[in-house]
Amino acid sequence: MTETGAKGMDALLRPRSIALVGLPRGFKAGKVFLLGLLDQGFSGPVYPVHPSAAEIDGIRAWRRLSDVPDPLDMVIVMAPREAVRDILVECGHKNVQVVILYTSGYGETGEEEGRREERRLLELARRGGFRLLGPNCMGVYSPLSGLACFPGMPREAGPVGFLSQSGSLCNLFAGLCASQGLYFDRVVSYGNGCDLDLPELLEWTAEAPGVGVVAVYCEGVRNGRALAGACRRAAQAKPIVFWKAGQTEAGRRAAASHTGSLSGEGRIWESLFRQSGTQAVQDIEEMFDLVLAFCRTPEGGGDRIAVVSGPGGPAVSAADAVERHGLRMASLSDRSMRRLREVLPPTGTSVRNPVDVGLSASFDIRLYLDALEVLSEDPGVDAVVAVGGGATAEISRVYVDGLARFRERSGKAILAIAYPGFLTDKALLEPLHRAGVPVYPTPERALRAYARVVRYWRLRAQRAEARVP
Amino acid sequence: MTETGAKGMDALLRPRSIALVGLPRGFKAGKVFLLGLLDQGFSGPVYPVHPSAAEIDGIRAWRRLSDVPDPLDMVIVMAPREAVRDILVECGHKNVQVVILYTSGYGETGEEEGRREERRLLELARRGGFRLLGPNCMGVYSPLSGLACFPGMPREAGPVGFLSQSGSLCNLFAGLCASQGLYFDRVVSYGNGCDLDLPELLEWTAEAPGVGVVAVYCEGVRNGRALAGACRRAAQAKPIVFWKAGQTEAGRRAAASHTGSLSGEGRIWESLFRQSGTQAVQDIEEMFDLVLAFCRTPEGGGDRIAVVSGPGGPAVSAADAVERHGLRMASLSDRSMRRLREVLPPTGTSVRNPVDVGLSASFDIRLYLDALEVLSEDPGVDAVVAVGGGATAEISRVYVDGLARFRERSGKAILAIAYPGFLTDKALLEPLHRAGVPVYPTPERALRAYARVVRYWRLRAQRAEARVP
Repeated sequence: MTETGAKGMDALLRPRSIALVGLPRGFKAGKVFLLGLLDQGFSGPVYPVHPSAAEIDGIRAWRRLSDVPDPLDMVIVMAPREAVRDILVECGHKNVQVVILYTSGYGETGEEEGRREERRLLELARRGGFRLLGPNCMGVYSPLSGLACFPGMPREAGPVGFLSQSGSLCNLFAGLCASQGLYFDRVVSYGNGCDLDLPELLEWTAEAPGVGVVAVYCEGVRNGRALAGACRRAAQAKPIVFWKAGQTEAGRRAAASHTGSLSGEGRIWESLFRQSGTQAVQDIEEMFDLVLAFCRTPEGGGDRIAVVSGPGGPAVSAADAVERHGLRMASLSDRSMRRLREVLPPTGTSVRNPVDVGLSASFDIRLYLDALEVLSEDPGVDAVVAVGGGATAEISRVYVDGLARFRERSGKAILAIAYPGFLTDKALLEPLHRAGVPVYPTPERALRAYARVVRYWRLRAQRAEARVP
Repeated sequence: MTETGAKGMDALLRPRSIALVGLPRGFKAGKVFLLGLLDQGFSGPVYPVHPSAAEIDGIRAWRRLSDVPDPLDMVIVMAPREAVRDILVECGHKNVQVVILYTSGYGETGEEEGRREERRLLELARRGGFRLLGPNCMGVYSPLSGLACFPGMPREAGPVGFLSQSGSLCNLFAGLCASQGLYFDRVVSYGNGCDLDLPELLEWTAEAPGVGVVAVYCEGVRNGRALAGACRRAAQAKPIVFWKAGQTEAGRRAAASHTGSLSGEGRIWESLFRQSGTQAVQDIEEMFDLVLAFCRTPEGGGDRIAVVSGPGGPAVSAADAVERHGLRMASLSDRSMRRLREVLPPTGTSVRNPVDVGLSASFDIRLYLDALEVLSEDPGVDAVVAVGGGATAEISRVYVDGLARFRERSGKAILAIAYPGFLTDKALLEPLHRAGVPVYPTPERALRAYARVVRYWRLRAQRAEARVP
């Protein structure tokens, strides 16, 4: 990476000062950039730049970038397209490190004029010695640095990195993750990616010590070979969960007009994913489920699953999902079955896996907890799927505390299922989030995700072994 | 149907009086039957029967069934297994119409003794002239009749029928549906199905005028030929959404110990579903998504989909899903595109399908509503996927009212997508539920379900045509 490049990347994540060029006075779309920074409590100075306003929302505004009296690390540009070139020239004069260009109407229009103009932006960035994110992007969300491109983003930080060609998905995915207490180290919306593009951002994010897993939403790339190399190196460092949109003909056309992306052939992407060990997903739920599993199950977890359930139907469904996704139902030891027989009622229950603790366990929650304890000590069990809850909120609290304890003490994976009728109260799930227990709406979704995590660690171990001389 | 049969079925849904035999005094599992009836405000008399209690929860209790001074239509039995035979004999003497047997420990134990005992129950039912639901079941939930087998079930009634071999799934599925304002005409948990079994219940439910769609959770059947016939006849009357659990070897073993079911070969089930026009699903979410689509999209809806979206990523993802599920992106008319050009801003938007109304539409919600109006009048559009929401709750209210109006005025299907970041407040979705607009978490799930509904009506029309001489 060139020195300018490294400096630009650092400013992208930790700018000391920010100017917002073209910030609207009223409650319009561009206002989200200011609202985001205020919500996150960005600690550096923020300079609105506006051709005629003296202040915006009580913050002093400047007529031109060159009027700003202090040095600027980052400039976010939401000015009309016709003003952008001059602004970028000024950015060069101000010795800016990185520019985030929200303005659209470039390559994504599908017209040669737009593409040509986008190349001019890149030239201006090179000449001005700054990095350019965009155009047609939302920029960066990083709670550690007090950056956000939308208001209402969580202030908590966490282990997820997310790179997204779509700006709105940053907001939407962060909201989905927050519902499970899962937070971000950094989120970058990179839009048309005319300078800072996915390959570079991916390696940079995968290398970051605070990032445990990287999720990607991508509609297409300019340089397939660069992406293939970046995926390979990134996937050696961290799990990469990759949602390639625009996989169908209809999706490709939509992507072309959204970010001007050439989506490429499905088969080429498939082989790229397979060869690099990147985890391909097809929609936001699958991406979320898999990121959650990577964050909240132990490295190198095994494939022998025990199911503990009060309701019988979901237990059957969990057993189906175990086999459908290439996992195995754990064979419980004789000792475990003997102990289960001691603690469970003789009828309406089963001590074979799936362990059916019976309907009365919702009232007598000890039945769940005793069964979990037996399974935590069975060396033939790698992970437990727990379907249940208490008949009252109070009983459910004891239940979730039991699941959290299982995770903390046993070191095994536990996948909690919050069927709509059980554990509906979000506050009830808090102890599970804190203890790092993933919560899924169905056994099917939990096991689909967990199966991929198991395969990922196994494959990684095999590759590491192959590299040892 | 024999006269006894018809009488029994009527009492199953509309009993005038109910005895609860073996109702526990304390807060134990069996108590849910009484709590359910109290919650629903069952209007007939309820008689607890208990060997020693004089009253239970303030309701006078009777020592034996024969002590109850009034006629009994329905008896729910949760007594220990060893007492069940005598109770059934008494039911015959009391001229009871239908018995719901919660008690377990019969065929599902996998032991010959249990199976033999189950056959004896059936003999006693025949001899006593009553129908038997169960054993190992939860019985009936019907808000119209004030029946429920769990507390906290919705009191609202609706067009869904649900037949479930698992009792707990009745509760869980009802909770899931209620979250979308979708309610039930009847739910029957039939457990081991030793007398009243799925084929009979399925035809009975599909014939009911108040039922618009029937969902089924089934682990296995005794009489495959009877079920095939029942599915064929039922699917001619109503859409049947069928979750066959125990499809894998692991699932089959689990089902055997849950309801004593022989699950049968996957291929046999597949051909049964295909030949009868039954809609097979694999888990509770897929079942729910499909039931929702059947209830909330018009009969005979077409496959030409328009997407309206503010966020660009979800629009691309919706286009992918359209093609992946065999639907078509609608070609908008020149008139529509001209009108869209008039109402939408020139940059950051697209007047081609997917119609991208731009990020500013969250602030200027008229952009969404104008685009919807254009699409409602385009004869080349059968259904619209709407991804969006307002930047504030107030703006979102205008948005959801616009979607509801589209559904009411255009007669076309509209699928609302509530991405986690948008439309998070449940109260906001109320107008959509009332207007019959289905809400899905992602375009992928919405379109997967809608595609099956389109195919269902098309196939049904073809079959009806083939029958015309």
